[in-house]
Amino acid sequence: MAISDVTMKLNMDRYLRMALEEDITSEDVSANAVMAKPCRGEVELLCKQSGVIAGLQVFARVFQLLDNTFSMEYFCQDGDHVEKGQRVALLQGDIRALLSGERTALNYLQRMSGIATHTAEMVKLLEGTGITLLDTRKTTPNMRIFEKYAVTAGGGTNHRYNLSDGVMLKDNHIGAAGGIRQAVERARAYAPFVRKIEVETETLEQVQEAVEAGADIIMLDNMDADTMKQAVALIDGRAETECSGNVTAEKISQLREIGVDYISSGALTHSSPILDLSMKHLHPLEAPSSPHTPD
Amino acid sequence: MAISDVTMKLNMDRYLRMALEEDITSEDVSANAVMAKPCRGEVELLCKQSGVIAGLQVFARVFQLLDNTFSMEYFCQDGDHVEKGQRVALLQGDIRALLSGERTALNYLQRMSGIATHTAEMVKLLEGTGITLLDTRKTTPNMRIFEKYAVTAGGGTNHRYNLSDGVMLKDNHIGAAGGIRQAVERARAYAPFVRKIEVETETLEQVQEAVEAGADIIMLDNMDADTMKQAVALIDGRAETECSGNVTAEKISQLREIGVDYISSGALTHSSPILDLSMKHLHPLEAPSSPHTPD
Amino acid sequence: MAISDVTMKLNMDRYLRMALEEDITSEDVSANAVMAKPCRGEVELLCKQSGVIAGLQVFARVFQLLDNTFSMEYFCQDGDHVEKGQRVALLQGDIRALLSGERTALNYLQRMSGIATHTAEMVKLLEGTGITLLDTRKTTPNMRIFEKYAVTAGGGTNHRYNLSDGVMLKDNHIGAAGGIRQAVERARAYAPFVRKIEVETETLEQVQEAVEAGADIIMLDNMDADTMKQAVALIDGRAETECSGNVTAEKISQLREIGVDYISSGALTHSSPILDLSMKHLHPLEAPSSPHTPD
Amino acid sequence: MAISDVTMKLNMDRYLRMALEEDITSEDVSANAVMAKPCRGEVELLCKQSGVIAGLQVFARVFQLLDNTFSMEYFCQDGDHVEKGQRVALLQGDIRALLSGERTALNYLQRMSGIATHTAEMVKLLEGTGITLLDTRKTTPNMRIFEKYAVTAGGGTNHRYNLSDGVMLKDNHIGAAGGIRQAVERARAYAPFVRKIEVETETLEQVQEAVEAGADIIMLDNMDADTMKQAVALIDGRAETECSGNVTAEKISQLREIGVDYISSGALTHSSPILDLSMKHLHPLEAPSSPHTPD
Amino acid sequence: MAISDVTMKLNMDRYLRMALEEDITSEDVSANAVMAKPCRGEVELLCKQSGVIAGLQVFARVFQLLDNTFSMEYFCQDGDHVEKGQRVALLQGDIRALLSGERTALNYLQRMSGIATHTAEMVKLLEGTGITLLDTRKTTPNMRIFEKYAVTAGGGTNHRYNLSDGVMLKDNHIGAAGGIRQAVERARAYAPFVRKIEVETETLEQVQEAVEAGADIIMLDNMDADTMKQAVALIDGRAETECSGNVTAEKISQLREIGVDYISSGALTHSSPILDLSMKHLHPLEAPSSPHTPD
Amino acid sequence: MAISDVTMKLNMDRYLRMALEEDITSEDVSANAVMAKPCRGEVELLCKQSGVIAGLQVFARVFQLLDNTFSMEYFCQDGDHVEKGQRVALLQGDIRALLSGERTALNYLQRMSGIATHTAEMVKLLEGTGITLLDTRKTTPNMRIFEKYAVTAGGGTNHRYNLSDGVMLKDNHIGAAGGIRQAVERARAYAPFVRKIEVETETLEQVQEAVEAGADIIMLDNMDADTMKQAVALIDGRAETECSGNVTAEKISQLREIGVDYISSGALTHSSPILDLSMKHLHPLEAPSSPHTPD
Repeated sequence: MAISDVTMKLNMDRYLRMALEEDITSEDVSANAVMAKPCRGEVELLCKQSGVIAGLQVFARVFQLLDNTFSMEYFCQDGDHVEKGQRVALLQGDIRALLSGERTALNYLQRMSGIATHTAEMVKLLEGTGITLLDTRKTTPNMRIFEKYAVTAGGGTNHRYNLSDGVMLKDNHIGAAGGIRQAVERARAYAPFVRKIEVETETLEQVQEAVEAGADIIMLDNMDADTMKQAVALIDGRAETECSGNVTAEKISQLREIGVDYISSGALTHSSPILDLSMKHLHPLEAPSSPHTPD
Repeated sequence: MAISDVTMKLNMDRYLRMALEEDITSEDVSANAVMAKPCRGEVELLCKQSGVIAGLQVFARVFQLLDNTFSMEYFCQDGDHVEKGQRVALLQGDIRALLSGERTALNYLQRMSGIATHTAEMVKLLEGTGITLLDTRKTTPNMRIFEKYAVTAGGGTNHRYNLSDGVMLKDNHIGAAGGIRQAVERARAYAPFVRKIEVETETLEQVQEAVEAGADIIMLDNMDADTMKQAVALIDGRAETECSGNVTAEKISQLREIGVDYISSGALTHSSPILDLSMKHLHPLEAPSSPHTPD
Repeated sequence: MAISDVTMKLNMDRYLRMALEEDITSEDVSANAVMAKPCRGEVELLCKQSGVIAGLQVFARVFQLLDNTFSMEYFCQDGDHVEKGQRVALLQGDIRALLSGERTALNYLQRMSGIATHTAEMVKLLEGTGITLLDTRKTTPNMRIFEKYAVTAGGGTNHRYNLSDGVMLKDNHIGAAGGIRQAVERARAYAPFVRKIEVETETLEQVQEAVEAGADIIMLDNMDADTMKQAVALIDGRAETECSGNVTAEKISQLREIGVDYISSGALTHSSPILDLSMKHLHPLEAPSSPHTPD
Repeated sequence: MAISDVTMKLNMDRYLRMALEEDITSEDVSANAVMAKPCRGEVELLCKQSGVIAGLQVFARVFQLLDNTFSMEYFCQDGDHVEKGQRVALLQGDIRALLSGERTALNYLQRMSGIATHTAEMVKLLEGTGITLLDTRKTTPNMRIFEKYAVTAGGGTNHRYNLSDGVMLKDNHIGAAGGIRQAVERARAYAPFVRKIEVETETLEQVQEAVEAGADIIMLDNMDADTMKQAVALIDGRAETECSGNVTAEKISQLREIGVDYISSGALTHSSPILDLSMKHLHPLEAPSSPHTPD
Repeated sequence: MAISDVTMKLNMDRYLRMALEEDITSEDVSANAVMAKPCRGEVELLCKQSGVIAGLQVFARVFQLLDNTFSMEYFCQDGDHVEKGQRVALLQGDIRALLSGERTALNYLQRMSGIATHTAEMVKLLEGTGITLLDTRKTTPNMRIFEKYAVTAGGGTNHRYNLSDGVMLKDNHIGAAGGIRQAVERARAYAPFVRKIEVETETLEQVQEAVEAGADIIMLDNMDADTMKQAVALIDGRAETECSGNVTAEKISQLREIGVDYISSGALTHSSPILDLSMKHLHPLEAPSSPHTPD
Repeated sequence: MAISDVTMKLNMDRYLRMALEEDITSEDVSANAVMAKPCRGEVELLCKQSGVIAGLQVFARVFQLLDNTFSMEYFCQDGDHVEKGQRVALLQGDIRALLSGERTALNYLQRMSGIATHTAEMVKLLEGTGITLLDTRKTTPNMRIFEKYAVTAGGGTNHRYNLSDGVMLKDNHIGAAGGIRQAVERARAYAPFVRKIEVETETLEQVQEAVEAGADIIMLDNMDADTMKQAVALIDGRAETECSGNVTAEKISQLREIGVDYISSGALTHSSPILDLSMKHLHPLEAPSSPHTPD
């Protein structure tokens, strides 16, 4: 797993900069008080909990944005399982940048790794079922690109990214259009032609309508196992099928039998606890230097 | 609890706008496909889980930024306990704005309410101990202002907001300065004079040094109950005391006896699960109108 | 045709503001020199050329961003055919705002209407063929949302919006992946599952490979009529087909016979001449008022 | 012809970045799917049509903003005539950056070269007449700096850049001021003293008034050849003269005789078709490398 | 004197917002602590020093950006002479907005009024000399639009606004070009044709060269009175003349005799002390209201 | 004295960029006219007035933002006393960047050095008194970070940075809360617990109330020497004391006797004249090079 430099510069940097500005509105008073001049130092990144790591490049980028001289040695990469106590990376740079970026960098890494860890557990439960685990748009505001990436680092698959690049017709859209058929027709006429069209259904009648309207994906919402089974039979391969909800062991054994293609889970991104990591053993690599080093 | 309009316009709007742009990069294809013209509608905000609500004004503001005609009737306010099934608010506005803003508005409200709910539980455990519950800087990037507010809505108290408005001298700062005394001296000379100075300590020797250096607040980090008790006795009211870590029933009974002033918890903001809420029963209040209404 | 207020506020306003700042970096010296105080005035928007109008809300929005009191009466709407000399709209507002916004508003409207006019001509040529006309990503930088909308106002259909919301595998992608099959597999594994996958092909062998790899859309690039016919027969409804290139009368009669689904044209957005429109007969509606009117 | 680095960094980069964000809102799904890791590659920039090239540094800068390792060998420079089939430049960089930046870079280069080509044709028609060809403010929104530069690359001359740095008094300004004399007086009193003042005139009476008011430049708008001749005679060198409108062979022979100084043309920037260019023969220069290369 | 709403919204608001964000990075802790809810209040704006007022609309706009309900009654307008103790305006709005905006609004108004006051004194000294007083680009960073406006409010005239809208050829430009003639030729060829060209000269030889090169304006830099007199004679009306430097009574009597057209002074904007003003007598107009008032 | 690179990149760059954009909205016409290609040059920074220098890194950073090849040799550092005629630094870079950045860089350096010079004079007057000199929030909008730093370079101490990171309860806050005791209680309950609380007092009764309410700092506003003396006696070390106002020799001898801890002065930042510096002796280090140097 690796994030493209293009994605980092173009789509992630703006959030990283804002997050740094959120934590350092005028200056880092503590770091600047104790370190009056630049001084190259080294610090380790350690796991304090076992899980799946995600976001190492994001973590490093936070420091790069503060310090042109920053470098990091990676001892593992995104998607790897890490153990409590494991040394994940070794960082070098101006001590003030290491101190000032620490919290923001860890806040990203811990949250992303928490999501990857949670996702990997769900993916493991689904092993052998043929069902693909999807995320949702229930992400933390201004964190979507990081959280969706963390889901893939944990082995999950991304649903649509946002309201502009996917079409999903829910009950309210269907009501507004006057029926599933009309909603799908309008969407097909309106949306860029490369979009698949997904319809949310709650009854077998709706499933039937959606199939006839030519939906590409049909979401089976809040159906009991029996109804879901009938729905999948009724669809009979004419559309992909997605069910949403909690991924429990019991539910999975039902789903395996039913033959649904996808299961989506909001909890992956909205309720995963973090994975605990920390920066330890900061020490200088030199005597403090002159402040007027080239930038 | 209420957020000042000044805070909303000046300090929150920028994040809300970015979050909306994250979810709608070019347009909401589904909503625009089914609703070709403006149409005033109404929708309810319902609890699907009991807890403490936080972020109602933020939730409403998301829609206001999309629709000048939006209005919302509040049936409760931030900090209130809400029950599963309870109607929290009634929203009116252009149906397209209600559809397009729904996910972003709920993503804020659910996360903020999750934090408030978790905080309120911790505060309840501390009742009668005289100990104040604090948050930390372990917040989700670009969510701090919302998460810190949610902590207060749950009855907690905010620690420093960021690296610019508080001084905390940790082991790395102390190492860089050459000792606690030197670190405190430098901080006092450097920091704006309105700042209190907090020092993190791990041993009784460090506590002694911090007291003598004139620290305003002393954090007792990773000490066992016995050491912490001696530390508080040693400090003897010459500085405020903070201990950090998990707030468990057992720990609290120890802390009560020890007489520490504050306990800080990162989990409040980094690992609270969301509180489930949803928008239901969207319906039009009129026939779709002309698109050229004044803006 | 109407642009949603949500789209305008969230996705268009930022460009309109930048365009105004491009034309007025410190102030409109000419307008401010001759009009020292606010003064309500009226001006007509007239066609100087026949064609299809597109962008009237964008045109109006430019003035709204400068003047809260601005209003506009519409005499036609986007997608309408307009005749040389026709009065399209009547504008009222502070004369300084009318003068200062004129060029920027017209620059948008003229370009968008030029594209709609050109598109409508192409769509007319395709009438009865069953072939849908598509645009491309060959748009003017920072004009895509306006130009893609103008294409739909002229009766065309949008291809993918950008590199994030559609997958198209061209020769370079195929080369990098080591073949069409591998490229499609990687895209299916990597891309959010709601994306259709399009493959660009130049030979019948590639068409065969693309069908077998399960491409959702196959672009037939630079093929002669005969090859294209064989390609469509080979695909046999297992994928949608798109051909790109100039839309000439001769080509269209060939395509009709061949049975291709879509034709895409970059010229719609990159080389349409503008439609000439102008603002005329500006006159005051009152004596100049006090400058300190509420804003 | 060369764009100063200062201009590029300070005045152009912001538009290039926005244009890239317009085309890549979250990531380039196609490129990232097929290229999981950085890989240095090479690609040629070729002409597919003869004309005048303009915007090569802008084209290169798009890739530099995505990839610190990007470099480009130039085989010609802005203002040069290029032939169909000619190799214009050779690009090297991370293949993902080459793929992701291609469309945006070409959209700039093709439009700018189209304008330069069109301008060069007009300038050629004016050769030997002593008349200077000017552009206008009828540019594409958020493209002015690129389009005005392209005009100069084609041999044209820039009129005022925007409403802040030039004064032009049109009929509406004159009406508002109560006459040409008053308008010029107010402008002279209000505008920074380094501004020349231009007045638009439609009759010989207005020309007379403008001369007497001390206008620095007089635009002769919509006058027939005979009136224009009398106007130039009447002005008699006391102001520079500009006529606007289409530059046709017939018109030019009239103008030559009349002795007008400048002719301005909106079509240069609003209606030039693009010059067709393309990137071809992309190939890797190495085996794909590790993703964790220093940034 | 009045600032156009277009100028305010388009060119000033961005600075006002940044200045407010500079003073309120997360929230106004003091105001929000004591005022938990919105409450309409009233406060007076008083002069504490006599001088010339400038920036009243800017002052009001700061509060408007924080509070939609804000209104202000003006008792004088920009350019008026005000006396110590005079009531300048009466403000009404949410007390929290009045408290939170106070410092930023006063920081603008005091500085702008200080400049206007200083300028008015210089203009008075020049009365009857026929010499016009100019400002320079020696303004405080990010304050130019406010400081240049303040100069006009004090009766001064603006020199060029920035490096993009005026041409001035100084010794370094002349050196780079190889002489005054070459520098003027290059500038005439390069600069948009509406620009006047100013040349800085230090000797009579340079003055001679500048006249022959066709400079529109000639700056006489660091010349003694005698040399300046010869320079003006040599120029003999073929260019406008500007001298720069301190405006003292003695110098003015010399200049009057010499017949120079303009005198420019950097001190107007870089070294004027502020004019002291303050907000007094804040009091509520109602009992604190509910926080959920419409925004 | 040195500014941390983190502070420069994160907190200062945005202002420097805006200031450059203010001075160069489309391009530097004069520099670009005379220098068609990049050319490395050298220029000296000289003092034209004796004083204390502040802002050298800011000065250099302005050029770095325009030119990656820029470098500067420092002959002194911030806080140093400099003499008229002294060479302060030697700059090398592209001549166009040196010309284009000159005014903006000097505008920062001159203002910052003016403040440092003024502050150093005040600090000298306070020598031996034990009183610390403080700045205020009466800074120039969008200059605070630079002006507060300049105060420290002159030997002064910073008061709170902004409304978010310090609590000061003035008469209006006290009125709104219903008394000093209530205001302090509310602030203690509301503000992050690391904030000190300052109360502004005008009478001895208020001082008594403030002490009892537990204020950390008490400002003695507009008190005569006698009252101030009683106030300090009454406070008796239970809070720090600050007096505000003009720092005159007479006042200082009074204050020394009274035993106040701090004196704050708005004039340091709002009314210091600049320190005059200039860039001289620009000369090329090479023949002009090709424009296509790597960026």
